[in-house]
Amino acid sequence: MSQSICGKSRIVGFRFSLYPMSDQFVDVIKGALNETDTSKVWLKTDDISTCIRGKAVHVFDVAKCVYLHAAKTGLHVVLNGTFSIGCPGDSEGDSYMMVDDVRSNEADLFELKIEAPTQFALYPMNNSGYMDLIADVVEIAKVKGTFSGGIHYASRLDGNAHDVFATLEDSFMATQEKVSHVTMTVNIAANSPSRKKA
Amino acid sequence: MSQSICGKSRIVGFRFSLYPMSDQFVDVIKGALNETDTSKVWLKTDDISTCIRGKAVHVFDVAKCVYLHAAKTGLHVVLNGTFSIGCPGDSEGDSYMMVDDVRSNEADLFELKIEAPTQFALYPMNNSGYMDLIADVVEIAKVKGTFSGGIHYASRLDGNAHDVFATLEDSFMATQEKVSHVTMTVNIAANSPSRKKA
Repeated sequence: MSQSICGKSRIVGFRFSLYPMSDQFVDVIKGALNETDTSKVWLKTDDISTCIRGKAVHVFDVAKCVYLHAAKTGLHVVLNGTFSIGCPGDSEGDSYMMVDDVRSNEADLFELKIEAPTQFALYPMNNSGYMDLIADVVEIAKVKGTFSGGIHYASRLDGNAHDVFATLEDSFMATQEKVSHVTMTVNIAANSPSRKKA
Repeated sequence: MSQSICGKSRIVGFRFSLYPMSDQFVDVIKGALNETDTSKVWLKTDDISTCIRGKAVHVFDVAKCVYLHAAKTGLHVVLNGTFSIGCPGDSEGDSYMMVDDVRSNEADLFELKIEAPTQFALYPMNNSGYMDLIADVVEIAKVKGTFSGGIHYASRLDGNAHDVFATLEDSFMATQEKVSHVTMTVNIAANSPSRKKA
């Protein structure tokens, strides 16, 4: 949030936490991170969250991979975080903008089919037309077939994780073409026991 | 995020998830919610998150209470969510704006002293001076003695839960005096085993 550590490049960041609702949470978190090829992103983990930064394709690739490897355990897990682009002053990690565009993890994930109920919110900063930009994103989700309703302060997506992550990526990327600084919060669940009761 | 469901009143909302990293997560979540007096807020839970809405004092009171009752179990738990005010169109729950200002839970919480390492980010919407408003909030946290550094896309707080929540509330309330629509993401941990390794 500090101006001093937030360049001019279109580097994308995702600060996230992975929450396994299990006594084995340490193993699940470490396992999901170890199974993910993170070589094309800047990465730093602290005691609260992990921050990855780089080209958009790789940030979204890594995010989906971490989620899917945790979710395939069958445990109730949640990936919760905030995507960001255009934060004024952000330059650290620019070297990661020189890599190719081949998603490192996609081939490993293709066969993992997991339902990914999601709530997300989009924040286009410093823009008077931001509510219209949010409405545009809802249309993207409707076309993708993942939109399942507006709720207070968020929108809901349901569907296969691949479709949900594609919706999130398309929404974020479409918005950042119109607004310099955009953030997007995501709360992506898996295997919730209360899923059927909602 | 839909315009159709987001008044004119200064109702505050907090959409949050409580994540206990434990096989007993259902009991911890239900226990924390049951131990909290939520009579002064509108409340709705779904399979991903809980949304509370009402006067700012009560929304922050309930948020702290839920966190502390979950954290006192000694388990690694996280309260993660987004505070919001001034979302264009928000009116449902206006009846909760008629209650008194006495915090229902504060007296029960006084003796619960728990360290609450926190990452938070403030999003003043539709305002060209938003980076200055964020800097103002950092000053609030410094005065409170809870600020422990800027990180990518967020700021960090450390300290007793009462001081951390007071910092969050003061930061949010000071900002919403200057900007109509403000959101603030919070990621508040407790009892993390990696705390010492950070």
